[in-house]
Amino acid sequence: MPIDHFSFTNNITFRLRYLINTESFKSNGPIFFYTGNEGDVEGFAKNTGFMWDIAPEFSAAVVFAEHRFYGKTQPFGNNSYAKVANLGYLSSEQALADFVELINYLKNERIPFAKNSPLIVFGGSYGGMLAAWMRTKYPHVVDGAIAASAPVFWFRNSHIPEDIFDRIVTRTFVNSGCSLKNILAAWRSIQLLAKTDNGRTWLNNKFKIEEKSKLIEESDAKALIGFAKEAMESMAMVDYPYEADFLSPLPGWPVKEACKFFNKANLNGDKESAEQIYKLLNLYYNSTGKTETLCVKPDKCSGAYAALGDPLGWPWQACTEMVMPQCSSGPPNDFFLKDCPFTLDKFTQDCLATFNYTGYTPGLMRPDFVINNYGSRFPTATNIVFSNGYLDPWSGGGWRLYPTTKGTLVSLIVEDGAHHYDLRGSHPNDTSSVKEVRNLEKLHISRWIREAKRANKRHLKISKKNVNKVPF
Amino acid sequence: MPIDHFSFTNNITFRLRYLINTESFKSNGPIFFYTGNEGDVEGFAKNTGFMWDIAPEFSAAVVFAEHRFYGKTQPFGNNSYAKVANLGYLSSEQALADFVELINYLKNERIPFAKNSPLIVFGGSYGGMLAAWMRTKYPHVVDGAIAASAPVFWFRNSHIPEDIFDRIVTRTFVNSGCSLKNILAAWRSIQLLAKTDNGRTWLNNKFKIEEKSKLIEESDAKALIGFAKEAMESMAMVDYPYEADFLSPLPGWPVKEACKFFNKANLNGDKESAEQIYKLLNLYYNSTGKTETLCVKPDKCSGAYAALGDPLGWPWQACTEMVMPQCSSGPPNDFFLKDCPFTLDKFTQDCLATFNYTGYTPGLMRPDFVINNYGSRFPTATNIVFSNGYLDPWSGGGWRLYPTTKGTLVSLIVEDGAHHYDLRGSHPNDTSSVKEVRNLEKLHISRWIREAKRANKRHLKISKKNVNKVPF
Repeated sequence: MPIDHFSFTNNITFRLRYLINTESFKSNGPIFFYTGNEGDVEGFAKNTGFMWDIAPEFSAAVVFAEHRFYGKTQPFGNNSYAKVANLGYLSSEQALADFVELINYLKNERIPFAKNSPLIVFGGSYGGMLAAWMRTKYPHVVDGAIAASAPVFWFRNSHIPEDIFDRIVTRTFVNSGCSLKNILAAWRSIQLLAKTDNGRTWLNNKFKIEEKSKLIEESDAKALIGFAKEAMESMAMVDYPYEADFLSPLPGWPVKEACKFFNKANLNGDKESAEQIYKLLNLYYNSTGKTETLCVKPDKCSGAYAALGDPLGWPWQACTEMVMPQCSSGPPNDFFLKDCPFTLDKFTQDCLATFNYTGYTPGLMRPDFVINNYGSRFPTATNIVFSNGYLDPWSGGGWRLYPTTKGTLVSLIVEDGAHHYDLRGSHPNDTSSVKEVRNLEKLHISRWIREAKRANKRHLKISKKNVNKVPF
Repeated sequence: MPIDHFSFTNNITFRLRYLINTESFKSNGPIFFYTGNEGDVEGFAKNTGFMWDIAPEFSAAVVFAEHRFYGKTQPFGNNSYAKVANLGYLSSEQALADFVELINYLKNERIPFAKNSPLIVFGGSYGGMLAAWMRTKYPHVVDGAIAASAPVFWFRNSHIPEDIFDRIVTRTFVNSGCSLKNILAAWRSIQLLAKTDNGRTWLNNKFKIEEKSKLIEESDAKALIGFAKEAMESMAMVDYPYEADFLSPLPGWPVKEACKFFNKANLNGDKESAEQIYKLLNLYYNSTGKTETLCVKPDKCSGAYAALGDPLGWPWQACTEMVMPQCSSGPPNDFFLKDCPFTLDKFTQDCLATFNYTGYTPGLMRPDFVINNYGSRFPTATNIVFSNGYLDPWSGGGWRLYPTTKGTLVSLIVEDGAHHYDLRGSHPNDTSSVKEVRNLEKLHISRWIREAKRANKRHLKISKKNVNKVPF
């Protein structure tokens, strides 16, 4: 794969990893292609059972492509993250072009009898954005896209409220039985306890806080609250109806489980109030009972998203092209501490702190790139399903917050669905709304495949005609 | 403008030149935007009178954008062409992204009351490809495109016969009254004369060949014939019905003029036969009577296309992304000496010879880039007019060789038109077919503007709705 598809300043190439299964594939059957995300592709292959489930009935090949600079796809090996001159090639447009090259290779060389195969892309979250953008930018390569939980509009000047993420987190928790009052009280109690030595000692012990990240001064309350916030945000994302292990191993309906801790009508002082949060953290980080301590300061030990691998990859994208304004506006909009407004200045400072070591400079941040490049509307796109879960905080930036159809662009809402729930494999506990959405998705995929086959035939005919009918 | 829109390995920026005229512009009127070509933008502004002609009735602003690395837009000043590390940023995708940035700047900062202006792109030849690709890749930025004489399919695997260019040149000359027999005889005579010292001396004197490029051995006949071929190809391109100065100053219907030299029924020997070619060359290079000598070896003195400026720019693009297979298959298909088939090996050798000095390596050539990136079909594109002239050899690679409509993609043929004749300003000698095509183009432009205004209104409404209707 060329490291740079759009300039010709070097001809460095690298190997891009992909997983492939052609067991169900029959001649000219479709290729189901997952547009990999900000992490090792194996995790996505495991958590995207939908593609595997439906491959046999469509006689489809299943492919999972790893995104450059994630998992085992490190273009410069151990130096991939070392400096701007290397890491700079981690960008969404380059990734899309990788996928196009891979698709051409698969169709023409890797998979026999796939030359005219319809190509359907699937993706969730950032991968969902890539799936949608594949169809808008390369409609001659991709016949249709399932873009699940893809916050394609979560950028500047696209009119997404910057606090919508935490509004939805709050809605999911409150609708799952959490007492808003208790959660607000818990933050207050943590802050009060953190004011004294005794209180901090109690917090450090109670929360089993790792040595390196112990609370030592009053302001450390913020770190603990921030840590709990991240857990709650993640839990809203993975609020599936059954045991699952996406960001962390969790029981079914984890938010409802957590909310059981937040229901006591009369709390007995700050310690009992704060303890509710500990129970939630223990559920999120220690449902298996094996975690012994919590690291509440991600810069001191290890962060919440380390599970996805390449912990600096997404921050790099966020500090260059994927600038997604996000903050909490506090009660009554959400139940977190207010840190709105989001400002580019503050964000740039964070980026400098993180990436100074690479030679990063603020000029590398292009906060308007995504909207300029991919658009805040899709005037000519067709054959995309945007699916979003009502429980999922990312749904706030998806295409339409309600079910709708515009031409062949479709917005589907999984009423009791979390983050790309529809992409998961079928499960006995599946809700009726996810089953319905998956069935609709299958209908759209069938139509796209039919259309693609017709178009391919027509195209071949026209090409032959052109060859024979030279106008001289 | 960032030098690299798609990676983040540096934050070098440069200034992109554009010409602007807002005399006719009224609030929210359209912007007519020319997507500049492989040359100084001023030449295109002078030869694209159509945009100027229709701007007043549309209350439009007129903008001509210069393509990076051409004209005065040299991102690295005098070193722009010095080495791969600089010249590598000369690419079509980077140029499109430049235009998007420029458009956003024009709408939001440079032109007052243009924030919601419809944006129509115009381009001819390579600029026409860019116009079409702007609409396919950036439909959220560009509302419609007039892509004149744009050979968008002139690449590998798109089923364009590699000899179609010279077939059409031949057709244009024969249909303009040239005797096929006489032209073939002329090549033969030049080859025979070049065999002897006397013959070569006669040719050097007769053709007024510049000292540096004099014929000195038998094989030099090829250089002279190649030189004449280039002139004939260019004349077919600029066969306009009136005096014009695009590639070279010429009388009206220059091919018909030239063909007057090729009509004698019985030629009196090789000299008279060869002289026909001299007369043609004299017409093409010396219609003003001021040119004293001809340089028939472009590597020794100066080539036919030097008039466009930056003579290495287009070859660079051809040696990286714009690999357009082209060759002559000889009689009966065309009246040139056979040099088919086109092979990548031979072409790569030429590229190495030309660009060795920059550090160019064959790995930088990506012969499938254009078709992979932009497609050999446009399954979702809308609002593009592809216009082609029947006299123009480039028409062979345009979208449809006959007038047709597919959705809102339109193919128009100017029956007696040469290279992007429709983009030229109106002239008393204009043919009825060009007038008709321009009128149709105006109708399409009106429709695109109406649609864009409606879509903008709708979009503003939805955006507001999103802001107010947060789902919590």
